[in-house]
Amino acid sequence: MDPILAVGSVAFDSIKTPFGEAAHVVGGSATFFSVAASFFTDVRMVGVVGEDFGDDEMRVFAGRRIDLEGLERVPGETFRWKGEYGFDLNSRETIYTRLNAFEGFQPKIPERYRASPLVFLGNIQPTLQADVLDQVRAPRLVAADTMNLWIEHARADLERVLRRVDVLIINDSEARELAGHPNLVRAAQRIQAMGPRILVIKRGEHGVLMTRPDDGGFFAAPAMPLDTVFDPTGAGDTFAGGFVGSLAASGELTDAAFRRATIYGSALASFSVEDFGLNRLLTLSRGEIDARMAEFKRLTHFDVR
Amino acid sequence: MDPILAVGSVAFDSIKTPFGEAAHVVGGSATFFSVAASFFTDVRMVGVVGEDFGDDEMRVFAGRRIDLEGLERVPGETFRWKGEYGFDLNSRETIYTRLNAFEGFQPKIPERYRASPLVFLGNIQPTLQADVLDQVRAPRLVAADTMNLWIEHARADLERVLRRVDVLIINDSEARELAGHPNLVRAAQRIQAMGPRILVIKRGEHGVLMTRPDDGGFFAAPAMPLDTVFDPTGAGDTFAGGFVGSLAASGELTDAAFRRATIYGSALASFSVEDFGLNRLLTLSRGEIDARMAEFKRLTHFDVR
Repeated sequence: MDPILAVGSVAFDSIKTPFGEAAHVVGGSATFFSVAASFFTDVRMVGVVGEDFGDDEMRVFAGRRIDLEGLERVPGETFRWKGEYGFDLNSRETIYTRLNAFEGFQPKIPERYRASPLVFLGNIQPTLQADVLDQVRAPRLVAADTMNLWIEHARADLERVLRRVDVLIINDSEARELAGHPNLVRAAQRIQAMGPRILVIKRGEHGVLMTRPDDGGFFAAPAMPLDTVFDPTGAGDTFAGGFVGSLAASGELTDAAFRRATIYGSALASFSVEDFGLNRLLTLSRGEIDARMAEFKRLTHFDVR
Repeated sequence: MDPILAVGSVAFDSIKTPFGEAAHVVGGSATFFSVAASFFTDVRMVGVVGEDFGDDEMRVFAGRRIDLEGLERVPGETFRWKGEYGFDLNSRETIYTRLNAFEGFQPKIPERYRASPLVFLGNIQPTLQADVLDQVRAPRLVAADTMNLWIEHARADLERVLRRVDVLIINDSEARELAGHPNLVRAAQRIQAMGPRILVIKRGEHGVLMTRPDDGGFFAAPAMPLDTVFDPTGAGDTFAGGFVGSLAASGELTDAAFRRATIYGSALASFSVEDFGLNRLLTLSRGEIDARMAEFKRLTHFDVR
């Protein structure tokens, strides 16, 4: 079981959905990723918090396979984000983003972390993602997330870091924007030409499309149909945590391992949306994950005669 | 191999997409359904055309397992429809609908057709769908399509016919509207309570969700990722043709047969959109269908360890 180095944001999220509100709950890309991945392997987290991130907040990491040596604490407040979701949860409006402690974030990778065989670069500035890669030693796999902000305003930096990324995990709208093509098959080909040999396209309630490592085709995973979706916040980072965590646990980078990773990621994300913020992940058990993997098999299996 | 009775429209379609135009090509729900289903079994078609539907147009049915005794010819013009698709092919505007011969359509089921074990009711007025069911003798399976027009303007008639339908095949937006619930899991439960024990929800480029006959869960099939989608016209009826056709050919109504039917339907639909109107289906071979079924398996297969 290979350890994962995970770099990203740790935040206080305030969330409003049609089903209720949650104020100042612990969130952030590194948080969701690390909690999800820690079901599979050891995670070495790098991020930054302010003085307001106290013992209560630290409890979300307690008793998990999450190494916190890389979690820096600086003066001032922690990164804060507030968002509000529309009726169908597919649209989201950002009410505010206060970078706070995150504003001057310069990822410092502890010496013990530098030989991590798997690296996850959460959605932060591409130049910071590159800084992380400059500090690590020959990882077997680099996975990364990004967003429309960097595609539009830091494209050259993003393209430079993409040449060093093995697996890019992004939304369908981001894939179309990054590639400049509305068709996802064509978009995927263009993005692969930028560097990442594997592209994982998240489509929310419609599941995930992954380019297959063996033959250039696609692997498609549906989202689990759920009768209650409470809060999509963090679902993408939770997916990434299950995905990279499963790869780390398998120790293999085969076609079969990548397919299984996509389903583990989808399974973790399907739990995450069932309650506000991290709540559902914090009570989740490995037995529940295994049961949902079996349900994913029932959801998708067919035989051709 | 059980024969299928298929009732629906036969039409001249005029289509404009971002990739080109086609004027006055043969279309209609009964046409797409019958051509697709005829790859699997004998289809007994019931519909109506006008005097302008000549030998050239009849050629689309030639050499196929399609019985045309039920295709009525009446004075005047054939049903005509013109539609234009938006850039991403997900939005469609109807330019005109001219019912013509279809206006006075009263389905007359030939005596030879009345014991058909499988019945497909294309998207026509619910009272006409009921008229068809009044004329047939104890079919093993009744599958039906409907649309927002009938949900909004003929709801009582639609609810009456739904009590006699085994499999309802509709779009996701129609499912939400019929059920009055935005969540597809809840919507499916409500629709099943109206009569159909199996609900097949078409989600366009996002694939299909089917309620499972064995345990009330879902079966999810992705759409085949395609680098060129030319024209979505008829894709839904083509799906239904592959779905019901595959069930007829298997002679079974088991969970495994319904899963396979969903994939056959998806495979047929994936060909249909590759060219304008019926064009691609008219050159399609059984070998190509089998090859695409194998590609659907590669697209979706995974093993949990």
